[in-house]
Amino acid sequence: MSVLVVGTVAFDTIETPSGSDKTLGGSAMYASAAASFFAPAQLIGVVGDDFEAQHLRFFERLGVGLQGLERRPGKTFHWAGRYSADFSNRETLATDLNVLADYSPKLPDKLRDAEILMLANIHPQQQIEALSQARMPRLVALDTMNLWIDTCRDDLQRALKQVDLLILNDEEARQLAQTPQLVKAGEALLKMGPRRVVVKKGEHGVLCFSEEGSFGFPAYPVADVVDPTGAGDCFAGAMLGCLASERALDESAYRRAMVYGTVLGSFVVEGLGPEKLRSLTRKEIETRRKELLQFAAAPNF
Amino acid sequence: MSVLVVGTVAFDTIETPSGSDKTLGGSAMYASAAASFFAPAQLIGVVGDDFEAQHLRFFERLGVGLQGLERRPGKTFHWAGRYSADFSNRETLATDLNVLADYSPKLPDKLRDAEILMLANIHPQQQIEALSQARMPRLVALDTMNLWIDTCRDDLQRALKQVDLLILNDEEARQLAQTPQLVKAGEALLKMGPRRVVVKKGEHGVLCFSEEGSFGFPAYPVADVVDPTGAGDCFAGAMLGCLASERALDESAYRRAMVYGTVLGSFVVEGLGPEKLRSLTRKEIETRRKELLQFAAAPNF
Repeated sequence: MSVLVVGTVAFDTIETPSGSDKTLGGSAMYASAAASFFAPAQLIGVVGDDFEAQHLRFFERLGVGLQGLERRPGKTFHWAGRYSADFSNRETLATDLNVLADYSPKLPDKLRDAEILMLANIHPQQQIEALSQARMPRLVALDTMNLWIDTCRDDLQRALKQVDLLILNDEEARQLAQTPQLVKAGEALLKMGPRRVVVKKGEHGVLCFSEEGSFGFPAYPVADVVDPTGAGDCFAGAMLGCLASERALDESAYRRAMVYGTVLGSFVVEGLGPEKLRSLTRKEIETRRKELLQFAAAPNF
Repeated sequence: MSVLVVGTVAFDTIETPSGSDKTLGGSAMYASAAASFFAPAQLIGVVGDDFEAQHLRFFERLGVGLQGLERRPGKTFHWAGRYSADFSNRETLATDLNVLADYSPKLPDKLRDAEILMLANIHPQQQIEALSQARMPRLVALDTMNLWIDTCRDDLQRALKQVDLLILNDEEARQLAQTPQLVKAGEALLKMGPRRVVVKKGEHGVLCFSEEGSFGFPAYPVADVVDPTGAGDCFAGAMLGCLASERALDESAYRRAMVYGTVLGSFVVEGLGPEKLRSLTRKEIETRRKELLQFAAAPNF
């Protein structure tokens, strides 16, 4: 099965304790790139005429399909942010929507039969539009952000009724569920529609809630974080890519997918933007996956 | 083997979103109580003449030995604190040292041969005094707090040179190591003396660093936190109690001990102060340990 990722493609300006730099960004960029290590991935999004051949090559080298990437007159979506010293907080310095402002996702006819659809972080209305064009997806996942929870909760809740899998971070989970306790938030979010809720907690790992039981897994202990941007999108993309390669979407498959999500998230934070993904190999992924399982291995009793 | 716990015994006044209440408190109270579920435990500490028979009965019922509990004229140490709505922050409202102010721990002769010594959170100078009276402990563990890192770093670092196991929370780890990144902090703390560093992250689980490799484990997903006070002390006490019941103190034994630490921590937060420990049974502990292992179970690949 292949993964169809709808979301943003951006230029990011990122300030970390070690400096400021421009890089490729966007939820669909990170998610489709991460998914491509596990399954064929296609990207649905929009860029401006400042998006050059070198940027397209990033996707081409990874094998991400660009049939659904629109190019429009104007500038590509731009985001600028600054991280705190321990990377636990980030401040948005600029959000220039540019060509994203009046973008309406269009799924080329060939892609409407995608079995796995990932609605990466973008306006909920744009997520709903994309979803309405998919014919019979086997699995629909949705990621979101604090801005949409604040400004268009109704659209978001409408979207949630149509998805199988909600993927969001801990702050967003608390905000969307309107409860400070994370376990209660997980239970509340399940009632909003999705059959499964995955809460990404950055360096603290992942929590997953579903009727089949909950799951907790630690993050890989990265010694030197360079830039956390995109870790959550890579987690989600890798997770969906893995699920696309599974026969049965059972609890075990979901857990495997979250382990691989954790691995991809751990790689991407080691470089600026998606830098680490350019040269990452499946062999490095498997080596780290084994290290991670050893790190998290429960003892015998 | 038995566990000898040195630390504070207190009366706590605790404010949570659901109200304010007085309860038994103190690092050695929680740690010795938790340890007692796994091994014989003894407590070294001091109380005032306001510490009544009903309070002593708490320890007696658990089988915690009180030969090293001094009773002095004056009031018992009192701590008051207030938790934020999501329990992620707490503010100290009062610290009345009372009889703790000029306390000097004394190990009764019979207890000086203790094989496992836990220096629970108390002034580092008092930890050093207690340690100097132990004859040949097989394992010495130390817990501390932000106040001592701020005000007596030198004493604390002297103590750290003499301990095997450092147990502290993530904020304290960053503060003591003077680095915002937790993995780097773990590495820096190992250089201060202990062979093993256990970082307690509350609802986010535990991280352990040692030469034998690192370990990450999630917290049990408690649905309804009532009062997080003492969770870290219970984690540490249960951990030491478990180690006391192990033949070989290898990586596997440490991991088992941290799993049980996680279990005891998860129980204590479900009630005010040490309330849940009064009626807790070994059977309940085993049931939750199995649930926790299921919750954290890595999938097959």
